[in-house]
Amino acid sequence: MNNFEYSNPTRLVFGKGEESRIGELMRARVPAMSPVLVVYGGGSAKESGLLERISESLKAADLVPIELGGVTPNPQLSFVQKGILLAREHRVKAILAVGGGSVIDASKAIAIGVPYVGDVWDFFTKKITPTEALPVAAVLTLPAAGSEQSIRIVISNGDRKLGAGSPLVRPFVSVIDPELFFTLPEKQIRAGVIDMMSHIMERYFTQTKNTDFVDSQAESAMKTIMKNGLKLKKNPKDYDAWCQIGLAGSFAHNGYYGLGQVEDWASHGMEHELSAWDTTITHGEGLAVVVPAWMKYVWHANPKRFVQFARNVMGVKGEGTDEEIIRKGIKAFRRFLKKMGAPKNLKELGAEKADPKELAKKAVEIPGKLGNFLPLYEKDIVKIYKLMR
Amino acid sequence: MNNFEYSNPTRLVFGKGEESRIGELMRARVPAMSPVLVVYGGGSAKESGLLERISESLKAADLVPIELGGVTPNPQLSFVQKGILLAREHRVKAILAVGGGSVIDASKAIAIGVPYVGDVWDFFTKKITPTEALPVAAVLTLPAAGSEQSIRIVISNGDRKLGAGSPLVRPFVSVIDPELFFTLPEKQIRAGVIDMMSHIMERYFTQTKNTDFVDSQAESAMKTIMKNGLKLKKNPKDYDAWCQIGLAGSFAHNGYYGLGQVEDWASHGMEHELSAWDTTITHGEGLAVVVPAWMKYVWHANPKRFVQFARNVMGVKGEGTDEEIIRKGIKAFRRFLKKMGAPKNLKELGAEKADPKELAKKAVEIPGKLGNFLPLYEKDIVKIYKLMR
Repeated sequence: MNNFEYSNPTRLVFGKGEESRIGELMRARVPAMSPVLVVYGGGSAKESGLLERISESLKAADLVPIELGGVTPNPQLSFVQKGILLAREHRVKAILAVGGGSVIDASKAIAIGVPYVGDVWDFFTKKITPTEALPVAAVLTLPAAGSEQSIRIVISNGDRKLGAGSPLVRPFVSVIDPELFFTLPEKQIRAGVIDMMSHIMERYFTQTKNTDFVDSQAESAMKTIMKNGLKLKKNPKDYDAWCQIGLAGSFAHNGYYGLGQVEDWASHGMEHELSAWDTTITHGEGLAVVVPAWMKYVWHANPKRFVQFARNVMGVKGEGTDEEIIRKGIKAFRRFLKKMGAPKNLKELGAEKADPKELAKKAVEIPGKLGNFLPLYEKDIVKIYKLMR
Repeated sequence: MNNFEYSNPTRLVFGKGEESRIGELMRARVPAMSPVLVVYGGGSAKESGLLERISESLKAADLVPIELGGVTPNPQLSFVQKGILLAREHRVKAILAVGGGSVIDASKAIAIGVPYVGDVWDFFTKKITPTEALPVAAVLTLPAAGSEQSIRIVISNGDRKLGAGSPLVRPFVSVIDPELFFTLPEKQIRAGVIDMMSHIMERYFTQTKNTDFVDSQAESAMKTIMKNGLKLKKNPKDYDAWCQIGLAGSFAHNGYYGLGQVEDWASHGMEHELSAWDTTITHGEGLAVVVPAWMKYVWHANPKRFVQFARNVMGVKGEGTDEEIIRKGIKAFRRFLKKMGAPKNLKELGAEKADPKELAKKAVEIPGKLGNFLPLYEKDIVKIYKLMR
């Protein structure tokens, strides 16, 4: 295990009805009479009455809500820039995200953009590092990205999709009310479940040795996610299953499952190119296509770790060579994805026309390579995209 | 699952050599030239050169160390009072605990005592709630109590042993360097391992339903602790095993394994009476005697949960009635305790002369009853102490 630092200061407020406390919760950090930018996505937050309840809660706590809707999946730089201008105009003192990962990421980007004199895109091209940000709070409506407890942001600029991170944008409070997930469409449930699985996998597949404790935590979390994900496929109003998924998804991306180990993140890198190529592709569905192909390409870099995955996570029993056990493990994982209804190749994802060479070229353009389990260069990535056909 | 709030703001700095950064780490919160009270236990911290290294690190960061040694296991109110006077005299701005749970608890008590005009014991008798405290930092030398990430304090006043808690005393930074554990005597290793097991058990044995995710995390943590505890019994210089135990012990008591559920804590209550009756009794060794007796008395209050423990944690296989499976599970747990070399009854603990009636009477004196899995009244507790014979 490697040396590490960890803390998880986000105040997580979990359970039915808790979003009605958001005003009071924000006041712990934001002075009375402060304007608060309330960022949301489509019409559902408005139609369901959620935005109104939140607005009332803010007003009751002497805060002034300024609403900004219209965040899209794979949120765009242009939206963020619009949000920054609006936030400056109203002199907002904090950002409240009401939504899933896209809304929270857009809110985080606005939060670092408001006090910065240059273009907020500079943070994503790594031109500069954030030193200041407005405080961010979140009411989660879609458990998937784990952005409600994370320091990460992903923003798209046309067909460029880049990530940035700073402890400054970690929400100081996040509300997770599993009842808010009851109306999610099947596709969103599936994408969310796969996204949180992959957040754990990006950490679990490591070359770092002696990570016994974190391994065992990650393995049991992945099993719990799969079990409860399938329950939600059958009944999207299963409060108890949503509790497990809401909790697991949030911890999946706060750093806990990567303590003391080198993480990978190649699959996320490859998926980002797909959903940048076509921004209507849902990140979690893209991952369902990318991750099994990645597994097939990289397992030989550490067969022991993939045997452990097959045995401890996918429950593969019986004798066999390492390769046989590993292939059974990957097959079992694909079976799970199929049961969730996920696309199994680029065609089903609607990306059969994307050019592997173009995607690979863009994937390594800034980082040079992807991943650490097996460092992947442009030629490797072309091959992996081809495996997705 | 119940609604809950959670956050874990302690900055955990983990790995070999990290204690040499303590000065710089404290300066993130404490101004230059501040006097810092460095609290420690016996001579080993001094003889090993650890205290000198820490002192140098503090001085290099422009902090002024004021040393206070002599914390005993089951730390006494009189020591805390002495520490408060010393801290006031030197106008210290922060407390640095260098030790295990006793040292950290004594430091936390000093931290709430310094700004309080009355007797610090008032916090433990619940006469008042802390509203102010000096910041606390810790360098852990014995993984067991989890105090380095927790809001809890336990202090003894003669033969009274009481707990208190406040987010104000949660260390803002804690260093865990597994190499510092290499010289621990076998008894301390054992007591530590059992203490962290029991911190998870006090949460795991709950009547709250639908706690799937947290259950799975707790089960895998308990298995990891037992496996690595036995490794350390064989080789106390096994760095990798200490990494797992150091990490597990710290998360065992930061609230993670109790998210959304009603916790128990009856076993801790009963053990506290034993180590208050004879302060040379080590808390973890007392728990080795208390927990199996508690299990035998309470399992019928929720056999399903005890079957789950037997199957998922203790690995009990095969068919049988619930009672048979449960008894096998408890037996397997006792077998683990025996392998660790723990005392199996009050006699081996050196407490055969303690009077069950007296102990039980004191145990309920302030709270009225102990525990939630099966609420235990005085007469129940007498019976449980008798089961320990």
